[in-house]
Amino acid sequence: MKLKVVSFKACPFVQRVLIVLECKRIKYDVEYIDLAAPPDWFLAISPLKKVPLLIVGEDVIFESNVINEYIEERYDNKMHPDSLIKKAQNRSWIEFGSSVSMCTFRLTILQDKSKFIVELEELSNYFNQIEKVLVNEPFFNGSSLSLVDATYAPAFQRIDFIEQIYGSIYDKKRHRKVINWKNRLLDLEPLRKSTVPNIKELYYQLLWTRQGHISHFLDEETFGNRGPQSVY
Amino acid sequence: MKLKVVSFKACPFVQRVLIVLECKRIKYDVEYIDLAAPPDWFLAISPLKKVPLLIVGEDVIFESNVINEYIEERYDNKMHPDSLIKKAQNRSWIEFGSSVSMCTFRLTILQDKSKFIVELEELSNYFNQIEKVLVNEPFFNGSSLSLVDATYAPAFQRIDFIEQIYGSIYDKKRHRKVINWKNRLLDLEPLRKSTVPNIKELYYQLLWTRQGHISHFLDEETFGNRGPQSVY
Repeated sequence: MKLKVVSFKACPFVQRVLIVLECKRIKYDVEYIDLAAPPDWFLAISPLKKVPLLIVGEDVIFESNVINEYIEERYDNKMHPDSLIKKAQNRSWIEFGSSVSMCTFRLTILQDKSKFIVELEELSNYFNQIEKVLVNEPFFNGSSLSLVDATYAPAFQRIDFIEQIYGSIYDKKRHRKVINWKNRLLDLEPLRKSTVPNIKELYYQLLWTRQGHISHFLDEETFGNRGPQSVY
Repeated sequence: MKLKVVSFKACPFVQRVLIVLECKRIKYDVEYIDLAAPPDWFLAISPLKKVPLLIVGEDVIFESNVINEYIEERYDNKMHPDSLIKKAQNRSWIEFGSSVSMCTFRLTILQDKSKFIVELEELSNYFNQIEKVLVNEPFFNGSSLSLVDATYAPAFQRIDFIEQIYGSIYDKKRHRKVINWKNRLLDLEPLRKSTVPNIKELYYQLLWTRQGHISHFLDEETFGNRGPQSVY
């Protein structure tokens, strides 16, 4: 029974799942929907109106981290540590990754410059925390990829896109290990395969639609007139 | 090695963990802290400055759902279903429970009446979704308690406290199964043991401190003058 992932093309949470599927070399189909105009069949099976969904035969699983835990339990090539306590700590930092992702999301919708700056400081504080726990390399647990790596990579990719138009976001002195880690994650083949090829252009288009402060760092001529603000 | 839970007395997320510990009859200690003035040792080990923390010897685990998964994996009296797909779906609804909890939290801090009403409608929509999946009784999976039950019980308890001062929040026709479920959860001995005995008074005191719209349904004479708004 082939797995099916319901996706929105630029969604970082879907990517978390696709990275794990790629790492484990599991075959899957992706069905893209438009979250700005979601189809009825999607609304009927997605209680939070969010992607990803994983469809397994007649069954639906929602929430990216839950889907990843299911894939981890069902398939080989284990990505969680064996030790129960280390596994739990990995999961704690996966939850922390949700705060990083939400922060990264807010950076794209905040319209007020001062609020944008405060959010950048929050992100920097998160990096300070992560810096303290990054004792292994090249990845979170050392040489092999984990669900923690799959969780953070899509957020790092978006922060990278933001940096390309805004300028440096990491602190080269304080976030040395974080920078090394994210560079390794951004180079991963599973990360490349977890997105559509034009993800960067799609992401900038999304920033333009969201019309946050950050969108003023995009070239107005490329994106046309500003419409009403929308998340999708 | 006895488990230690770091708690804030009125915290619903800590309760999720204590309910599971009670259900599994595991011995534990609780250390209460004041989140309005958190001690340095706590800030050093809690990356999100939140409770609960589970301390296992030298190790720290954070995030209530992660802690519950650890307890589930390490100890007997299993609360997750055996089936991987049902287990994943339980976890999906645990994540959904976080949205319900956040909604319940926002009901306590929103100052604007119209925003409070909109939040109540959001909560009602969540109940509509839960009503659809409640096919078993008395609990989420049927006769035995699960991590899903442990996740929702503290939120239901708070909604109950709010109802006692505000009036009905559930829709008796649309939320029939939800109402039955929450009534069963509110009767549980592990729920009672998961809080301090004066939880209701503490909760109302917290509402007063948060000074949201809902605090106007409390008797002003009992709580004294209103200070600056604070979450804790």
